[in-house]
Amino acid sequence: MRRGSTARRPVERVTVSDDGDVRRTRDDQLAVEEPLEIRVIRAEDAHLPDDSPLCEERAGRGRGRGPAHRISVTMRTPGADFELAAGFLYGEGLIGGAESIASIRYCTDAEQQYNVVNVRLAPGAAFDPAALSRNFYATSSCGVCGKASIEAVMGPACARIESRLEVDPAVLTGLPEKLREAQHVFERTGGLHAAAQFTVDGALVRVREDVGRHNAMDKLVGSALLAGEVPLAESIVLVSGRTSFELVQKAARAGVPVLAGVSAPSSLAVELAEQVGMTLAGFVRHPGFNVYAGGARIARRTPQGVGG
Amino acid sequence: MRRGSTARRPVERVTVSDDGDVRRTRDDQLAVEEPLEIRVIRAEDAHLPDDSPLCEERAGRGRGRGPAHRISVTMRTPGADFELAAGFLYGEGLIGGAESIASIRYCTDAEQQYNVVNVRLAPGAAFDPAALSRNFYATSSCGVCGKASIEAVMGPACARIESRLEVDPAVLTGLPEKLREAQHVFERTGGLHAAAQFTVDGALVRVREDVGRHNAMDKLVGSALLAGEVPLAESIVLVSGRTSFELVQKAARAGVPVLAGVSAPSSLAVELAEQVGMTLAGFVRHPGFNVYAGGARIARRTPQGVGG
Repeated sequence: MRRGSTARRPVERVTVSDDGDVRRTRDDQLAVEEPLEIRVIRAEDAHLPDDSPLCEERAGRGRGRGPAHRISVTMRTPGADFELAAGFLYGEGLIGGAESIASIRYCTDAEQQYNVVNVRLAPGAAFDPAALSRNFYATSSCGVCGKASIEAVMGPACARIESRLEVDPAVLTGLPEKLREAQHVFERTGGLHAAAQFTVDGALVRVREDVGRHNAMDKLVGSALLAGEVPLAESIVLVSGRTSFELVQKAARAGVPVLAGVSAPSSLAVELAEQVGMTLAGFVRHPGFNVYAGGARIARRTPQGVGG
Repeated sequence: MRRGSTARRPVERVTVSDDGDVRRTRDDQLAVEEPLEIRVIRAEDAHLPDDSPLCEERAGRGRGRGPAHRISVTMRTPGADFELAAGFLYGEGLIGGAESIASIRYCTDAEQQYNVVNVRLAPGAAFDPAALSRNFYATSSCGVCGKASIEAVMGPACARIESRLEVDPAVLTGLPEKLREAQHVFERTGGLHAAAQFTVDGALVRVREDVGRHNAMDKLVGSALLAGEVPLAESIVLVSGRTSFELVQKAARAGVPVLAGVSAPSSLAVELAEQVGMTLAGFVRHPGFNVYAGGARIARRTPQGVGG
């Protein structure tokens, strides 16, 4: 059975009172969390017709063996799984773009159906299964994580962001309210991270939610990628919660010029944003925000309006 | 140079106003985020005296080769790194307990000094470097993540929690305020997750903070482990933010009978808590909380006091 992104569970609400505590059992909506395995099948490795599922017994246990490469298992909220797979592969530099992907399907005849996604690559598409472990070791030799190490982590996959986008501060401060209105699952469960893409005028383009903030960003980038809209040179991306190094890395890979968070960024997130030329704002909530990097993209407003 | 857990950075605060925006540059405290590599050295693999650092050129690139096993790289906030390493190894089932550890030291002659930790095992200590990848594949075949799959994920490493602890609801609702008072780094940066251990009477035992919630839990468990206090059969653990499957897994491994979160748990977190017999509370904030699993440990209070 395909799983939803929320699940009903009985929950006992306890309210403390000097006159004796009140206990009331009711149904509650929880955010679903389940593992998703992402597999990649090269065009030249797949001997079945394109619409055949490639499942458990055909998946190689190690990288490089068998027709399916097991790439990653992530704990995620079901929904937008194909976008998550595409965004993850793109964000990690395993594929070069949407044109590398021939199809994405659930592995429906495996026991873990709807928790395994097969990404079939287009003929001739470059695919680098070793990129993941290279990322791992590049990070591990990151040292004091200054400039040199960040270059090592990002590698050639992440070019400098050259977008000339200019953002009105009043637009930026209005985004969290729009995100809250759009976060349907959060409203029901109180438990989800979100990543949302807006136009420079503050119009919501898309929002994705997940129990994992990195998954929400992967889903958002994957959705844009599959729609042919990457790089997102004209967009503002807003994330709920804290802005980590990993989120800046994923946004940079998608060419996002302005990344805003409702909470604080980490030190390394700021260093990476500076390095790639990204505007990074934090504590975005009416009536203001902090600018940690790339302040040139924040328009100077005068009483007469926005000016240079 | 050893890194602190916060870093000062210049930040531009923008405040939106119809009379022209106000921009003010000031110094801000950010939570530091940096990679930590955890390495394990078996007693029989190490030919150097115990106080010699074992660094880059001596570390095997793959598991099972060379004197040091590279186990994990995690993005963490510096501080309590030894506890993080111990807690991670214990939580993942790679070591059996504190008696497995002979020493933990920074790899200070590597370029990445203070970002690499060597855990030297005691002679004869069981060590299972394959546990990590087994965990990976166990999770990946988790299917619909019902009972069978959770058993596969947890394996024999996680026994059922038999603690007869009983918690006063009024104690539980008072914990978030105590956590906030104790969260020093959060106060300065607004950006850190926390895990805190309390006695059944609500006295704070220890609190650990990190940019990653799983790291905060690893640090807490590692600290208790190194102090010889695991299993934490008489403790309540409170986590900031959302309660994920991974947090329940780590707490269960440490024998925590009551896990409380200030926000919502995920569906799988609740299923695992039920499975291992843990009490899981969420939305803990005055004057009440939700009980998702193990309600028998929540004391029934009458106007006369706590009763059975």
